[in-house]
Amino acid sequence: MQPGERLLEAASATVPLRVMAAHNGLSAKLVVEAGFEAIWASGFELAATRGLPDASIVTMAEHLAVTREMVSASRGLVVADLDTGFGNAINVIHAVQAYEVAGAAAAVLEDKRFPKMTSLISGGRQELVRTEEFQGKVEAACSARNRLVIIARTEALIAGLGVQEALARAAAYEEAGADFILVHSKSRSAAEVQQFARRWTGRAPLVLIPTSYPEFSVEDARDLGNVAMIIYGNHAVRAAISAMQRTFAEIRRDGCALGADTSIAPLEEVFRVQGMSELKSQEARFLR
Amino acid sequence: MQPGERLLEAASATVPLRVMAAHNGLSAKLVVEAGFEAIWASGFELAATRGLPDASIVTMAEHLAVTREMVSASRGLVVADLDTGFGNAINVIHAVQAYEVAGAAAAVLEDKRFPKMTSLISGGRQELVRTEEFQGKVEAACSARNRLVIIARTEALIAGLGVQEALARAAAYEEAGADFILVHSKSRSAAEVQQFARRWTGRAPLVLIPTSYPEFSVEDARDLGNVAMIIYGNHAVRAAISAMQRTFAEIRRDGCALGADTSIAPLEEVFRVQGMSELKSQEARFLR
Amino acid sequence: MQPGERLLEAASATVPLRVMAAHNGLSAKLVVEAGFEAIWASGFELAATRGLPDASIVTMAEHLAVTREMVSASRGLVVADLDTGFGNAINVIHAVQAYEVAGAAAAVLEDKRFPKMTSLISGGRQELVRTEEFQGKVEAACSARNRLVIIARTEALIAGLGVQEALARAAAYEEAGADFILVHSKSRSAAEVQQFARRWTGRAPLVLIPTSYPEFSVEDARDLGNVAMIIYGNHAVRAAISAMQRTFAEIRRDGCALGADTSIAPLEEVFRVQGMSELKSQEARFLR
Amino acid sequence: MQPGERLLEAASATVPLRVMAAHNGLSAKLVVEAGFEAIWASGFELAATRGLPDASIVTMAEHLAVTREMVSASRGLVVADLDTGFGNAINVIHAVQAYEVAGAAAAVLEDKRFPKMTSLISGGRQELVRTEEFQGKVEAACSARNRLVIIARTEALIAGLGVQEALARAAAYEEAGADFILVHSKSRSAAEVQQFARRWTGRAPLVLIPTSYPEFSVEDARDLGNVAMIIYGNHAVRAAISAMQRTFAEIRRDGCALGADTSIAPLEEVFRVQGMSELKSQEARFLR
Repeated sequence: MQPGERLLEAASATVPLRVMAAHNGLSAKLVVEAGFEAIWASGFELAATRGLPDASIVTMAEHLAVTREMVSASRGLVVADLDTGFGNAINVIHAVQAYEVAGAAAAVLEDKRFPKMTSLISGGRQELVRTEEFQGKVEAACSARNRLVIIARTEALIAGLGVQEALARAAAYEEAGADFILVHSKSRSAAEVQQFARRWTGRAPLVLIPTSYPEFSVEDARDLGNVAMIIYGNHAVRAAISAMQRTFAEIRRDGCALGADTSIAPLEEVFRVQGMSELKSQEARFLR
Repeated sequence: MQPGERLLEAASATVPLRVMAAHNGLSAKLVVEAGFEAIWASGFELAATRGLPDASIVTMAEHLAVTREMVSASRGLVVADLDTGFGNAINVIHAVQAYEVAGAAAAVLEDKRFPKMTSLISGGRQELVRTEEFQGKVEAACSARNRLVIIARTEALIAGLGVQEALARAAAYEEAGADFILVHSKSRSAAEVQQFARRWTGRAPLVLIPTSYPEFSVEDARDLGNVAMIIYGNHAVRAAISAMQRTFAEIRRDGCALGADTSIAPLEEVFRVQGMSELKSQEARFLR
Repeated sequence: MQPGERLLEAASATVPLRVMAAHNGLSAKLVVEAGFEAIWASGFELAATRGLPDASIVTMAEHLAVTREMVSASRGLVVADLDTGFGNAINVIHAVQAYEVAGAAAAVLEDKRFPKMTSLISGGRQELVRTEEFQGKVEAACSARNRLVIIARTEALIAGLGVQEALARAAAYEEAGADFILVHSKSRSAAEVQQFARRWTGRAPLVLIPTSYPEFSVEDARDLGNVAMIIYGNHAVRAAISAMQRTFAEIRRDGCALGADTSIAPLEEVFRVQGMSELKSQEARFLR
Repeated sequence: MQPGERLLEAASATVPLRVMAAHNGLSAKLVVEAGFEAIWASGFELAATRGLPDASIVTMAEHLAVTREMVSASRGLVVADLDTGFGNAINVIHAVQAYEVAGAAAAVLEDKRFPKMTSLISGGRQELVRTEEFQGKVEAACSARNRLVIIARTEALIAGLGVQEALARAAAYEEAGADFILVHSKSRSAAEVQQFARRWTGRAPLVLIPTSYPEFSVEDARDLGNVAMIIYGNHAVRAAISAMQRTFAEIRRDGCALGADTSIAPLEEVFRVQGMSELKSQEARFLR
């Protein structure tokens, strides 16, 4: 069964799918170990790990390489964040083919203009492409994929265009072939997306990213009835940042690593995650 | 001034240099922000971030790309972990040239046989190349560099060959042109490397990696008198692993991200590290 | 002396500089061996070598990697084709910094809209950005470079906007800081660019790409008086294509490679270009 | 049907399969267009295109990326040249998995020691690993692959060890699981490999690379009865080199590109290979 098919099967078994952000093979593996059903190959996290803004600066080639790394390291289902598709509908075609070959289960395309600006920044420009233009991108994606699940993401709420426009765009994207609709919001409460979900009459299930309304729970999603996935969009890199800052400060302050050692993963745990025991078995079996 | 020259200058100003491991541009930037004098472009950390053993599986091309990313994101001094030099003395020549162009300040070459096995694993094979063979690699490195600092690392203690052999190798590597000598140990106490340092009569300053003897402090290094650098070899990725595990578990358990949000970096802190304010200035200045 | 400075020095010594297209380290090396003063790191050629259209599908990361390869293999001066700058002025900033670190001598930015369409295709869309928008990109480039030469390329003639618009744009780009002005034309005669050159009153020297008017010679450029470079934009890959087609057909037809062997480079010549004699010297010196 | 299965099916339909070297997506596409049954993702060609010796300097990551590019551009069957497997049996496991995911149909592993020296150079060191060590690598490859065809290559003749040793090694590699046996020779006549083929009693079909004995034909292979593939190992890059040298020299000599234009592929042919007509159709269909 292809990854896209496995994702659809998972989505019918578990409601909602919980999808956690990752930014490399390691974090993808930890996502799977923690029991999430899928991995969010987050453009935001990838940009952050390079010390760069999430603004179409990191290229598709680099994001694709990390997607491959995640699939290989985790053997999990990867929902790939394709941003705007890295350009126009032609770029979308090439991207969709490449991500499917890379082993992704789903691709998310958003209706921002390339180069995009990250969604949750205050005061950032948030420019959308015309609805028809984005329909062309969704159709291009659907024509290019084989089993990859296509998720259309509208940034209408992010751009301040309101629920009505978000619903109209979502309907247009479903018409163009999208399998799921992701609606993003920067509201500090879930009310906005809940209103969207209640008024949504399409058959495409919804996907939410409750970064700005973190109290939104799996139960809340079930209550809405048409939410198929919750994406935790940036928690892996945020956890890593604060932990590294604390550890670095402690070692600098103490003048040695003794104290820090007690609050970070022991080497044996790193070895476990790296698969050292499998490596040793392979060495015993094949090195002569 | 080239990075290698800046590193030598820093080493004469601060004793010992504190060098913290990193595995991407983000962690490199945080290392500099925390006040460490240099960044350890750790092969172990890079392998771990891909979910792979530290056993010459990740290629030079991949490690080099991350080294570039670190230099670009941090503007700091990068001490690059070249493992065995990725093959023989010819590979060393190509590696040294590439890392110097990439902006590294120093390159560390170790006397293990390629493909290597990570040093601190229990029961792993630890095979060294002959002393003369490694002298050839050090000479090759010195012939190929321009200003890059060349650090020869002996794994004689890791391989269980004793302090005498480690000293003999160190002397041979200094004779071949090494600027610094790194001596690695897996002993649970600092006594082994302290014995090495006290018996070392070469003029090349020493470098230590006190992973297995974390109580070893900056003061201890100063007491020895010939230790120029302490490398904290894997604490960035270990901090990240435990933090992601905790955060992932909490979100899975809570069914929402509200609780986890309080212990991880807020989005605003990620934006700061990404340079969003500089991006906004650039947009204001150049987008028309 | 930095590559950008070396290029400016070369441009004052030889008029015009002859710049030949390349698509990898090998072709770059052959360009230098053939006596051209500089290498054109051609986006068109790079796309073609991947079997892809020259339409912003190949990413900056991939083009940058090939640029590095060219610098390293040839030690020559590389004029990098940055297309549109891979997005907006922010992308330009990141690109310019990266190409300068990669060792490029000059960067060419064109005033097409991203994603671009290759210039010489018949019936292709050729959309330019507004003059002010492109001025912002040129200013961004100049603010981000250190010694890299910035060449502004107008596609006004390609877009059918006429010489007057091309001149107006060129003047605006010079005002924004461009060091050279590249004017591209798809006319089957040189008359169009000659008219441009004669009417050009700016102090920035001109750059021409006489693909569609191949009779245009070095002498013709000298006659114009303000042409500093001629770029042969795609002849390396075109030579390679026809040669591979002939050789492949001959071997298929003959059922063996005996006949083809006489018209292709002998292995000894490949060894020479690869630097096998230097490798042997290095092995003799450093392998023990 | 997976690529490995398609290759086995092709090998039963056409005897011998003709496999032509390529070094990028473009050359791979031309190989398929010329009617060859498969593409040789040649390590020698790849090194040459970077201006580097074929001596384990180019990394697996880079060769793998080109393999992906070939599969994507050509949609053909790719026989990947894995050299020594990039290290020991553990490296082989990771390589085999990665190349299968990349879409290769077959992987060739040779019994040289890493880092290798190119086979046909005169006076080069040609060191083989022990037979048992290479059996471990073949077994590791077979354990790691799913449908990828595993071809074991012996360099015993290249190393001057004679036909008897080559046969013994071939038998040992077949016993370890190899699907095909490749025997390489630097003899100026086919007699050596013909002797090998006549004395070979294994059931694994043979693969030959008649670079040094180019008169060896498809008919000669059929006469032997157990030769399943002929690989033309380096003719793409050799054709490209001589063509670029001629074209570059002509343009330098003429002072213009008019003369050279008649002997190289016209732009329209490059557009065809790039798929510009498909791009135009896609634009018409999806750009709005």
